[in-house]
Amino acid sequence: MNILSLEDFSVEEINEILDSANEFINGKKVDYQGKKVIANLFFEPSTRTHYSFEKAALNLNCKTMNFDEVNSSTKKGESLYDTIKTFEMLGVDGFVIRHTQNAYYNELVGKINVPILNAGDGTGNHPSQSLLDLLTIKRQFGKFEGLKIVIVGDIIHSRVAHSNIKVMQRLGMTVYTSGPEEFREEGYNFVELDKIINEVDIVMLLRVQHERHKSLMEMPLEEYHKKYGLNMERVNKMKEDAIIMHPAPFNRGVEIADDVVECSKSKIFEQMKNGVFVRMAMIQKALEE
Amino acid sequence: MNILSLEDFSVEEINEILDSANEFINGKKVDYQGKKVIANLFFEPSTRTHYSFEKAALNLNCKTMNFDEVNSSTKKGESLYDTIKTFEMLGVDGFVIRHTQNAYYNELVGKINVPILNAGDGTGNHPSQSLLDLLTIKRQFGKFEGLKIVIVGDIIHSRVAHSNIKVMQRLGMTVYTSGPEEFREEGYNFVELDKIINEVDIVMLLRVQHERHKSLMEMPLEEYHKKYGLNMERVNKMKEDAIIMHPAPFNRGVEIADDVVECSKSKIFEQMKNGVFVRMAMIQKALEE
Amino acid sequence: MNILSLEDFSVEEINEILDSANEFINGKKVDYQGKKVIANLFFEPSTRTHYSFEKAALNLNCKTMNFDEVNSSTKKGESLYDTIKTFEMLGVDGFVIRHTQNAYYNELVGKINVPILNAGDGTGNHPSQSLLDLLTIKRQFGKFEGLKIVIVGDIIHSRVAHSNIKVMQRLGMTVYTSGPEEFREEGYNFVELDKIINEVDIVMLLRVQHERHKSLMEMPLEEYHKKYGLNMERVNKMKEDAIIMHPAPFNRGVEIADDVVECSKSKIFEQMKNGVFVRMAMIQKALEE
Repeated sequence: MNILSLEDFSVEEINEILDSANEFINGKKVDYQGKKVIANLFFEPSTRTHYSFEKAALNLNCKTMNFDEVNSSTKKGESLYDTIKTFEMLGVDGFVIRHTQNAYYNELVGKINVPILNAGDGTGNHPSQSLLDLLTIKRQFGKFEGLKIVIVGDIIHSRVAHSNIKVMQRLGMTVYTSGPEEFREEGYNFVELDKIINEVDIVMLLRVQHERHKSLMEMPLEEYHKKYGLNMERVNKMKEDAIIMHPAPFNRGVEIADDVVECSKSKIFEQMKNGVFVRMAMIQKALEE
Repeated sequence: MNILSLEDFSVEEINEILDSANEFINGKKVDYQGKKVIANLFFEPSTRTHYSFEKAALNLNCKTMNFDEVNSSTKKGESLYDTIKTFEMLGVDGFVIRHTQNAYYNELVGKINVPILNAGDGTGNHPSQSLLDLLTIKRQFGKFEGLKIVIVGDIIHSRVAHSNIKVMQRLGMTVYTSGPEEFREEGYNFVELDKIINEVDIVMLLRVQHERHKSLMEMPLEEYHKKYGLNMERVNKMKEDAIIMHPAPFNRGVEIADDVVECSKSKIFEQMKNGVFVRMAMIQKALEE
Repeated sequence: MNILSLEDFSVEEINEILDSANEFINGKKVDYQGKKVIANLFFEPSTRTHYSFEKAALNLNCKTMNFDEVNSSTKKGESLYDTIKTFEMLGVDGFVIRHTQNAYYNELVGKINVPILNAGDGTGNHPSQSLLDLLTIKRQFGKFEGLKIVIVGDIIHSRVAHSNIKVMQRLGMTVYTSGPEEFREEGYNFVELDKIINEVDIVMLLRVQHERHKSLMEMPLEEYHKKYGLNMERVNKMKEDAIIMHPAPFNRGVEIADDVVECSKSKIFEQMKNGVFVRMAMIQKALEE
């Protein structure tokens, strides 16, 4: 089956995937004996997501084929459908696709007969990231209902934010957003970070795209750090068991202070760890259901 | 043994490779148990051929090493021989090489002690493509003798055309070529497409290299499509069991109409499927003979 | 354990690694059964070293993940530590890292809990290259004590030279350097090549970085070849059992004449062969100690 957007899955199904991931953390083994081939097709650069899916596939003893957009026929103007259909013809057993275009998969669904795992589409969905975030939260708090989270930063351009906000609300969480005016998105429950920081269970930071921040916001990075960056002063106002999350890559000294990255409240590197197990669960589900 | 050009193989040997590929389609298993390493060295971009060889190697349970020319010492001016000799020294068991230079392998033959599979050289040979074309034809018609094919498009710049025309004639097929004046090659039995389309068993389209078509032909793409593109009107004139082939990547709306790509006569995606099995047969032959 | 610089290893330990590599040459098998994953992270292009480590890992039946800097988050300004920590979180079992920055590993040591194999740092260390050089020498002469070597070329910019000179002196070899004035490094026992060539056991050539030689030296390449290039005339002055080495990639016609590359004294391609076995020994040591 395809896993394209968490909106296609019930709360119960989401919890089943998280439970499966948790079992992988606790040592569950699934061995495809090198007989399944996963094609990782990344039409947009990504370190973390690409290698996390790759490692997940290797852990399941799948083989992988990694498609390098740089050296591809897409340069010759081939459509996405034609590229993906080609790989289907090669006999791959599953696709992991990252693409710059929102909902790129709409042109594939029903026409490609091999499961597709969406590894991120434009500013749209990023289900594996949401699932690893949820797994990290569930392992910390044992539940979602009633939890409060503030997501801080570039909401508009973030598929992480878009993916997370909807599913977290469905799971009974209260979601706030914060950050500079230019990144605010209507209807997304905006609050001042310093007014809410002592109330929330989770502070989730988004990456400032500093390589193009000048076109995105007027504020210098130093000012961003001062106003919205998570520093130890703000961390110390957080509730005792509250946690810090970030989808990474993060900018030390911009949205997060250097000494916060690995402080005791930070689950940032644990998120990356959980990501592999969530993706193992996703691959297994995609291949078997 | 090397597989560089089909000219080096008798009609009987070619049919043996096709039969072996057919057996793979019918479920034959060959398992090298991870003990053979195939190096895929692509000095020119290619999606289809590269990943098809890769998948073929994985199906045989070979390991693969994929050489990315972008990050290589060839940038430091190393000769092809020196690069290939290096990989031989690393202990690889077979080479799959694509290179921009015609007959690049002449500087390697007799000096490299590991089998080389030519995955395309400049405008010269492309034996794995020819073999998959032949397999597709043989599976459709059960024979070659007496079949008529028209190859339409950029004959001059196409290694697919060059590779195919010679071997098809040897196999007893009648080969016509068609397309714009500037792509015509002397001695290649030129006909008007619309005069022959109702007689041929196979229409094989070649890709218009639209990314550089302006330097190659004066005609706008729309005019090309009208004059030489395969649309449903032309398809309807084809014989009942005639088929459409294209080495891909194809340009929808240029050499082929959008709705022709997956029409019932089209074997384009089946060609891609057959490609993996032909390459399994080639790798096995190269490793064992 | 990490293998970052041969300075961290005693003469006895170095000989143990060489002996282990020799056993691999003689057929020793180590099989990690696909259960160990080596991440090859190359932040600087390299054909030989990258694929040699890759092949070494495959020979040990490890899986590999190859990090392509071109498509990475390091473009988004991520620090090396954060990138490496990410891969640690993914659960890889060992790192092979090449980086442009000297001693890049200083920011990693003690903070990364997975073994690191240094595949070259800036103009600093290149332990796997030194070890394969030493293995080639030991297999030829059976010892190091008393051997004389001259290293010819761009000493200053060469991590091969820096790595080798120190360890060779510790092993009891006499090391001379030669080449143009601008590449001479103080305290490195400089001699005229033609004065020493008949005395040394090993002539080790370094690559002229011709792609940027104009900024490095005034001399035209032809003049370099005449003055310092190893041609058959010079080869014929060498001692009977003396050998020629080069870390490669080499420039035929610059630091080495075309006909010298594969002459009987040349061990250049044998070095590449030995490299895989040395790296198998290194990976095993890193994973197990």
